Amino acid sequence: MLEICLWNPDVNGVIRRSDRIPDTIPGISRFQQVVLHQGRIERFFLDAITEASEIRVERGVMPSKLEIDESLVKDDDAYPITVTLRHLTEEEATPRQTSTSVNGQTVQDGLFRSNLAKDDTQDLLELSKLHDKANSEEVVHAKYLIGADGAHSWTRNQLGLKLEGDSTDYIWGVLDIVPITDFPDIRMRCAIHSANNGSVMVIPRENKLVRLYIQLTTTEKTGDGSSRADRSKLNPQVILESAQRIMAPYNITYRKLDWWTAYQIGQRVGTSFSVHERVFLAGDAVHTHSPKAGQGMNVSMQDTFNLGWKVASVVKGHAKRSILKTYQSERRGIAQELIAFDHKFSRLFSGRPAKDVMDAEGISMEEFKAAFLKGHMFASGIAVNYEASLLVAKKGSNEVQWDGRQVFVANSPDKVTSDESLCGGITVGMRIPSHKVLNQADARPWHLQELLPSNGRWRIIVFAGNVNNSEQQGKLEGLAQDFGNQNAFLRAYTPESAKHDEVFELLLIHNAPRTSVTIFDFPEVFRHFDEIDGWDYNKIFVDDVSYHEGFGNIYGALGIPHSGCIVIVRPDQYVSYVGPMDDSAAVSRFFGGFMTLQQQPSRVQTDIKPENAQ
Amino acid sequence: MLEICLWNPDVNGVIRRSDRIPDTIPGISRFQQVVLHQGRIERFFLDAITEASEIRVERGVMPSKLEIDESLVKDDDAYPITVTLRHLTEEEATPRQTSTSVNGQTVQDGLFRSNLAKDDTQDLLELSKLHDKANSEEVVHAKYLIGADGAHSWTRNQLGLKLEGDSTDYIWGVLDIVPITDFPDIRMRCAIHSANNGSVMVIPRENKLVRLYIQLTTTEKTGDGSSRADRSKLNPQVILESAQRIMAPYNITYRKLDWWTAYQIGQRVGTSFSVHERVFLAGDAVHTHSPKAGQGMNVSMQDTFNLGWKVASVVKGHAKRSILKTYQSERRGIAQELIAFDHKFSRLFSGRPAKDVMDAEGISMEEFKAAFLKGHMFASGIAVNYEASLLVAKKGSNEVQWDGRQVFVANSPDKVTSDESLCGGITVGMRIPSHKVLNQADARPWHLQELLPSNGRWRIIVFAGNVNNSEQQGKLEGLAQDFGNQNAFLRAYTPESAKHDEVFELLLIHNAPRTSVTIFDFPEVFRHFDEIDGWDYNKIFVDDVSYHEGFGNIYGALGIPHSGCIVIVRPDQYVSYVGPMDDSAAVSRFFGGFMTLQQQPSRVQTDIKPENAQ
Repeated sequence: MLEICLWNPDVNGVIRRSDRIPDTIPGISRFQQVVLHQGRIERFFLDAITEASEIRVERGVMPSKLEIDESLVKDDDAYPITVTLRHLTEEEATPRQTSTSVNGQTVQDGLFRSNLAKDDTQDLLELSKLHDKANSEEVVHAKYLIGADGAHSWTRNQLGLKLEGDSTDYIWGVLDIVPITDFPDIRMRCAIHSANNGSVMVIPRENKLVRLYIQLTTTEKTGDGSSRADRSKLNPQVILESAQRIMAPYNITYRKLDWWTAYQIGQRVGTSFSVHERVFLAGDAVHTHSPKAGQGMNVSMQDTFNLGWKVASVVKGHAKRSILKTYQSERRGIAQELIAFDHKFSRLFSGRPAKDVMDAEGISMEEFKAAFLKGHMFASGIAVNYEASLLVAKKGSNEVQWDGRQVFVANSPDKVTSDESLCGGITVGMRIPSHKVLNQADARPWHLQELLPSNGRWRIIVFAGNVNNSEQQGKLEGLAQDFGNQNAFLRAYTPESAKHDEVFELLLIHNAPRTSVTIFDFPEVFRHFDEIDGWDYNKIFVDDVSYHEGFGNIYGALGIPHSGCIVIVRPDQYVSYVGPMDDSAAVSRFFGGFMTLQQQPSRVQTDIKPENAQ
Repeated sequence: MLEICLWNPDVNGVIRRSDRIPDTIPGISRFQQVVLHQGRIERFFLDAITEASEIRVERGVMPSKLEIDESLVKDDDAYPITVTLRHLTEEEATPRQTSTSVNGQTVQDGLFRSNLAKDDTQDLLELSKLHDKANSEEVVHAKYLIGADGAHSWTRNQLGLKLEGDSTDYIWGVLDIVPITDFPDIRMRCAIHSANNGSVMVIPRENKLVRLYIQLTTTEKTGDGSSRADRSKLNPQVILESAQRIMAPYNITYRKLDWWTAYQIGQRVGTSFSVHERVFLAGDAVHTHSPKAGQGMNVSMQDTFNLGWKVASVVKGHAKRSILKTYQSERRGIAQELIAFDHKFSRLFSGRPAKDVMDAEGISMEEFKAAFLKGHMFASGIAVNYEASLLVAKKGSNEVQWDGRQVFVANSPDKVTSDESLCGGITVGMRIPSHKVLNQADARPWHLQELLPSNGRWRIIVFAGNVNNSEQQGKLEGLAQDFGNQNAFLRAYTPESAKHDEVFELLLIHNAPRTSVTIFDFPEVFRHFDEIDGWDYNKIFVDDVSYHEGFGNIYGALGIPHSGCIVIVRPDQYVSYVGPMDDSAAVSRFFGGFMTLQQQPSRVQTDIKPENAQ
């Protein structure tokens, strides 16, 4: 999807294209917005899991009981959670997806997952009990549990946590069709506001499909004054007819219907995202809203992307449990902002367009356009700016978090604060912007983000400036010596048995002319020697012109000063810290706030106590 | 591989970096040169075959007999070829790949395929006869046979065809190692000429591997005056020591050896590429040369890419057999140019570098650099310019082909000749250059080549100019009427039962502002209506600025005149014809030269005779 076309009634009430806006703000990312079927996204995840691990995703398994032993929740080595799982038969596990007969063909619909249908979790469990089989129950003892189980979240209900918020009055139908139409913008993303018949959003998709979100006006609702839609009156024909009224005088029909559903917009946020930082909730389990802005799956995946590396880091014994508090403090604020945005966007989308500037009740198209732009910032995730915490070394208390609730995160006695003015293009708490850099050893261009794969490693990026300058060379040598020191973070927090860069990866980006130096002009800590593999050629990069992909100019884009700087990047690519090259002590102090001191393997059993989070 | 570093002796005979040149000429393609293991290339082909068809590649099957019934070779429907195949047991089929013990580990080498080893085809066949099994033999009756069976080609030998040319005196060793070295450019492609010890080429590869091509000086040859190397004296240690002498004073060694081989350069071209245009030879079966310029697999794949669509087109009954003559006329010329280039390149690579400009016997580095550039043009295939033929409508006789031999291709009575001056950026006989265009319906940028997948279709690209101009609009409407005519090529040469665009695909690229028109402003022939799928949104494109990927400016780059033009592009993306928009008759005449007239299905049996090629 490249362009959004806005269609609105003209003075005669006939819809016409009033505006075009780009569907991804040019320049905000090297990626553009695309529409992918959720099944494909899930396939990508399943493939990546299979490639990277022995983990297999089980389906047709339902939890029936959840217990937390509160006396154990602070013990790093304990398994305080007990979950009872029930393995369903294939028949039981097949969703009662309803189907509709259209043109003599059976079409699946999504009503079973719509909030117009009631929650069937309890039904499924009771049905399963009737089929009591051998080996159908399994008890799992776990250190951590993540409930990413949707708006009807069983996990949330077990924990006694709530979603706060309301349903709106707006009812929408969804059709996935191969359209037959004379509407000229059917392959664009369109927002069509009719004068009196509601709105349609057009989302072009793969295989000639187009998804239409179609506002259902009062005629399709129940007549008894209830705000709840009557599910029995909803079918593809009714929804299509609504689209036809909205899109007139253009004609639209179809011969191929792939899927359809209907829903009522609800906007809610969870009161709490975690219990004891042992059981976490993510995605629809803690925030629900309208689907049209493309935020649901995106924001939800970002929840668990935020959480995943933190839990892994604690389970591996690299970091202390205190970092887990930052999941709620970082993500609940995002969810609240999202719901506030969605509230506004839904009203703008479902409301009647303003006739003119004097029409105060109507929707202003300027406001609507601005909302689209804001939506991109959410969907892309690049607007996220996490507040000060153990993991984000910037001004502000580590204790009061921006979701408005007191989330206690201990202030480190040696609190580190970034020099936020050092690099104008880097904001501490936001993702590090990506620009191209060249590998010093082979001149290959890489986007900086490609050098930061999500494998749990922290990165310390040294922007060393022009290393042909003797002052910069001197600072770099001093820094290398400090980093190589026996007591520095590199050795203190990396287990003896781990690979040298398993916890921290050092990257160096200089801006001397590429051809003026080779990797042998840089300290060994940036080109680790291995007896079998020789030198490491993949840690030293240069900001210079490439042969085929232009000039990344990362120094200019990020505002790196001549004196260079050190940037600490979290495993999820958010910036933790920015500071001068000559303050290597700050780096060690920063990691001292939450990393676990590693001991000689022989002394582990006597010296290490379970880490307490608080 | 991004950069080539040239290393040469300085005045004291010590190697130093004398030059850097880009390893793909910037701007010649949207792709750059990369090194991929041959196994991966084969995997890509196997995957594509599996995805697109039911065809499965059989291994361990050897031909033992080939017969051609010459009385049937001109009959379209006949199967004049009989091949007897022998299915080997797994044991028989496993190549007698030799192995070498290095550092206590067994390493496979490539000597069994080297020209230093004798051809083992006959041995394999005889061995197989001893194991006579039930069902081990199979007889295949074929319309066409393609022998892509390498330098020792069994097919070529059966046909009694020869390779002409010579072996050189140069012997090279190859090591695939993970290098341990202080040579600073080991991750660059390097050409290292030592003063007196021969040359090394460095090819950085995947997984930390580097391939070294190492010239073996006379000490490793046999001492009996033979120009043939003594295979028994070749091993990784001997080859490494040669590299160490060449690369001194830098040190190089390894702990990981992945593979090694050695070969003697031979440069030969087949006398004929086909017998009766029924059996064809391709790749090493008709041209062998040194491997270092990366031409072997590339030029060979281009052979069969040239041949494949032609055979398919004839087998499907779309085109006449006469087009098959153009395989030899087009590809033998390329092979001859390649060998001439390789002869020069090998000499430049294996020779001693010149001490100064007065050193007439030494190799000039300027000449060497120029040879690298020419090598790129070959390897990328973009320098190929096919001469006039039935398939290339340009000046010159269709009869005398550029491989220097008389290859008879009948001149069509209505020979069509392009207006080669019409578009300065399009050369008839070369691949159409690729630039970005936008889909009119959804604003998505596509590289022109992406719109021309190799699926056997001919493309007629109409560059319609500014369609808001009434003259251009008029010409476009006239053209659409002509193309839609009952007797036009579209209907005449597309089988009744085929999809409307199965043989010919019409594409339109205009340069009116994108937002000034919709697809409904264009004739229906460019937006075919389907009762189930609606309008076709993927045939009309525009040369305009994109949101995220710049401005393709294809009109400027290809020199399209204001008056527009028609370009015919072959299924292999080579340009057949360029002409003005108002000469639609030329398009029909061009296809009349070699396409088979399609009849009503009911009249096929009485009206169509077997097509004779001559």
